[in-house]
Amino acid sequence: MDQKPEQQDEEQVQNKAQQKQQQQPKQQPKEKQLAVKNPKGTRDFLPQQMVIRRQAFKTITDVFEQHGAVEIDTPVFELKETLIGKYGEEGGKLIYDLQDQGGEILSLRYDLTVPFARYLATHGYKKLKRYHIGKVYRRDNPSVQQGRFREFFQCDFDIAGENDPMVADAELIKIIDQIFTKLDLGPFQIKISNRKLLDAMIQIAGIPKNQFKTVCSSIDKLDKQPWKEVRQELIEKKGVTEEQADILSKMVQLRGEPFQLIQQLKEQKIFEQLGKEALDEMELLFNLLKYMNGLKNVIFDLSLARGLDYYTGLIQETVLLGGQLGSISGGGRYDELVGMFSKNSIPCVGASIGIERIFAILEEKYKKNGVVLRENQSDCIVATIPSKNIDMITEKFKLYDLLWSNGIKADVCYKLNWNLGKQLTYANDQQIPYAIVIGEDEVKQEIVKFKDLIEKKEETVNLKDLVQIIKQKVGK
Amino acid sequence: MDQKPEQQDEEQVQNKAQQKQQQQPKQQPKEKQLAVKNPKGTRDFLPQQMVIRRQAFKTITDVFEQHGAVEIDTPVFELKETLIGKYGEEGGKLIYDLQDQGGEILSLRYDLTVPFARYLATHGYKKLKRYHIGKVYRRDNPSVQQGRFREFFQCDFDIAGENDPMVADAELIKIIDQIFTKLDLGPFQIKISNRKLLDAMIQIAGIPKNQFKTVCSSIDKLDKQPWKEVRQELIEKKGVTEEQADILSKMVQLRGEPFQLIQQLKEQKIFEQLGKEALDEMELLFNLLKYMNGLKNVIFDLSLARGLDYYTGLIQETVLLGGQLGSISGGGRYDELVGMFSKNSIPCVGASIGIERIFAILEEKYKKNGVVLRENQSDCIVATIPSKNIDMITEKFKLYDLLWSNGIKADVCYKLNWNLGKQLTYANDQQIPYAIVIGEDEVKQEIVKFKDLIEKKEETVNLKDLVQIIKQKVGK
Repeated sequence: MDQKPEQQDEEQVQNKAQQKQQQQPKQQPKEKQLAVKNPKGTRDFLPQQMVIRRQAFKTITDVFEQHGAVEIDTPVFELKETLIGKYGEEGGKLIYDLQDQGGEILSLRYDLTVPFARYLATHGYKKLKRYHIGKVYRRDNPSVQQGRFREFFQCDFDIAGENDPMVADAELIKIIDQIFTKLDLGPFQIKISNRKLLDAMIQIAGIPKNQFKTVCSSIDKLDKQPWKEVRQELIEKKGVTEEQADILSKMVQLRGEPFQLIQQLKEQKIFEQLGKEALDEMELLFNLLKYMNGLKNVIFDLSLARGLDYYTGLIQETVLLGGQLGSISGGGRYDELVGMFSKNSIPCVGASIGIERIFAILEEKYKKNGVVLRENQSDCIVATIPSKNIDMITEKFKLYDLLWSNGIKADVCYKLNWNLGKQLTYANDQQIPYAIVIGEDEVKQEIVKFKDLIEKKEETVNLKDLVQIIKQKVGK
Repeated sequence: MDQKPEQQDEEQVQNKAQQKQQQQPKQQPKEKQLAVKNPKGTRDFLPQQMVIRRQAFKTITDVFEQHGAVEIDTPVFELKETLIGKYGEEGGKLIYDLQDQGGEILSLRYDLTVPFARYLATHGYKKLKRYHIGKVYRRDNPSVQQGRFREFFQCDFDIAGENDPMVADAELIKIIDQIFTKLDLGPFQIKISNRKLLDAMIQIAGIPKNQFKTVCSSIDKLDKQPWKEVRQELIEKKGVTEEQADILSKMVQLRGEPFQLIQQLKEQKIFEQLGKEALDEMELLFNLLKYMNGLKNVIFDLSLARGLDYYTGLIQETVLLGGQLGSISGGGRYDELVGMFSKNSIPCVGASIGIERIFAILEEKYKKNGVVLRENQSDCIVATIPSKNIDMITEKFKLYDLLWSNGIKADVCYKLNWNLGKQLTYANDQQIPYAIVIGEDEVKQEIVKFKDLIEKKEETVNLKDLVQIIKQKVGK
């Protein structure tokens, strides 16, 4: 699925992570040294960012799995012919090709939807409810502020198969609502429309079919520009007549609470002939969503016109209210795409969650609240007090073996001659909660000092009870 | 890090998954249809394979995290100049380049080690203990039987920073031992040597330094070929004299229990001048490993000669005993690599686990034992009995809302007119353990029938107790 491309250009992508890291002593590149940068429009994930990313993925996949979705994976590149002609003129230009080094002609995947359609055909599926998290690639103008990268993650959830009308579509919207509620990024809106209503509107206005795509791309700007500007573009650049534009204007600016807008459209008899079926579909969808309690963030928006070629029915897009981040999810129904790869066409509906923008918001939120998430997951270190009579290195690692073999997470200091203070400082720096301290006396008496570094308490514990006590402390 | 390349060629890669799927009705491609295959040497992961993959990743990352490692991620492609000259002549030929479409010249990453070195330099780290799981790319001859792909996962664990001698190296070996013990793939051996011992052996034999790489690549074949053949190759193709080969023969065939071999080398005074420091290092390593109880699967093997250019000290490789799968992990110390990107050189030691071969073994094992892992994670479905008086679709989705909003995993049938039998069959097929059944009576009385599909039991439950009862059943 697509994240709506933004218009702004930006010369240089600057990874936030890198900006942050520049507080650390900076490298002075020597002449003979290699470039030490990651490619433009890509990012490295630092440990702190990985913790946030894993949390976000978990929230999202938990909801997917709650709805019985299974997980799949596909290669990062596909045959070039698999991808071409699926993303419109603009999208096609953004595909990364691999160099022809002999053998197959390959391209990096642009989204997870076309590979999914290919996957269904390759493996002969008739139905599948799956999710897929993976990196996709677009030679777009990167912008960190907008959370727009050339390599970025998508979390896709799709339902493939012949099903009763709008049931899968409704579940999809419910899932999006659950995910953004759980992610707690702030108020959001799920905009919904139908590709068939767009078709109808353009036909009602008397605009020739071959202008459909170009007219849609103007209409799609209505979330950022007033009708006056869009109207001007339609007339001056897209060959739409003033009369056609005026007919369009009565429809494409309509948006509102789903049942109210349906009522209004019926009263105004707008889709009485053309688009009637699509309007009935929408009404059924909204009813199913009402039963599921999935309607509270939904808006029915006739200006929604997603750019990809493959949509055939429901289209949807989620935006954060008050933010400038663009869409955070998008998708819709694509009943014809699998048929391009297989004689058995399989109707599909799906959504893609743009995780990069979500990371940016979550990172900002943690930063604002001064939260530093634990990166190092270990529960303790073994700290030793040097002894003249006993080889404390042997004793240290024996104790590590005891901990590790019992599944306890225990980090190691690599400086064996550090004094106790330094060892404890290391643990504190790493946010490790406990230290197990041994010296000559402890070894002789088969005890350890068990230090709680957060509560700043210490107790003496028999070696034979140690594993059980730690397990209790860390709640295992 | 590198997985040792195998010699065999194979024309066509055939994904096991696809072979399995061909039992399903096969697609007859029409003339106008696109190719429906994934690229040669890549694989799709089916849901069942994803479950196995996640289990394997969890086992591995649990051990990494037990040792206090943090997770990072880097882009799938790097600047081409970042990668060139790091993988030897053979490795370099296998790098996938991206087409020059304007802008930077990029290549797909060949391993996770060079990107890690670049990452350390980019972000100015002085030390880091990290793991990284990601796909890497090699234009190699693929072979499914060998678990060798062009796109494959590596799980890397590396310790960067100035540390006391061999402590990090020992922990690394201990980690490998823990991981393969936990994965339970069968008996395995961790072969260990030192690049400096190789240097010494070649110098002792009087072979010029510029023949080092080519001689090493012959020595490295000793795990598959007898010395006689390797000797012949050295003399006939690598310009080694018979005398030099005879001196080498007394050293490179040595392998054995670590302390025994060290004793033997000392008695034979082989590394008394050259290589003495390296031998002392190895003795320290084995001592540390002994304390950690990490020596039981270790063999000291002087024929080990890993191909990559960047190793400077410890080298290691893990093989399954009795298998034909090649190495399942490899790695070593690379103290100079970061210095190629930064004026601050950072000593590093690390290992890479070749996950594809592990998947193949685990898949085979489950298949042999007839185990089918659950793909669909949901705990229940809501099944409805049609009614003339009540809209059961409304009631169905109200109940789903109750379940979903309480975090319960509940899958949906998309056929709303299926009879109860069909709905329960769906649940059974998906290995979903419970069905919540409602009809007109249940709705009126605010009860549900709670069916245990595995135990084939049914009980009547008050609607208000339902959530609590399911949570108890599924152990939450």
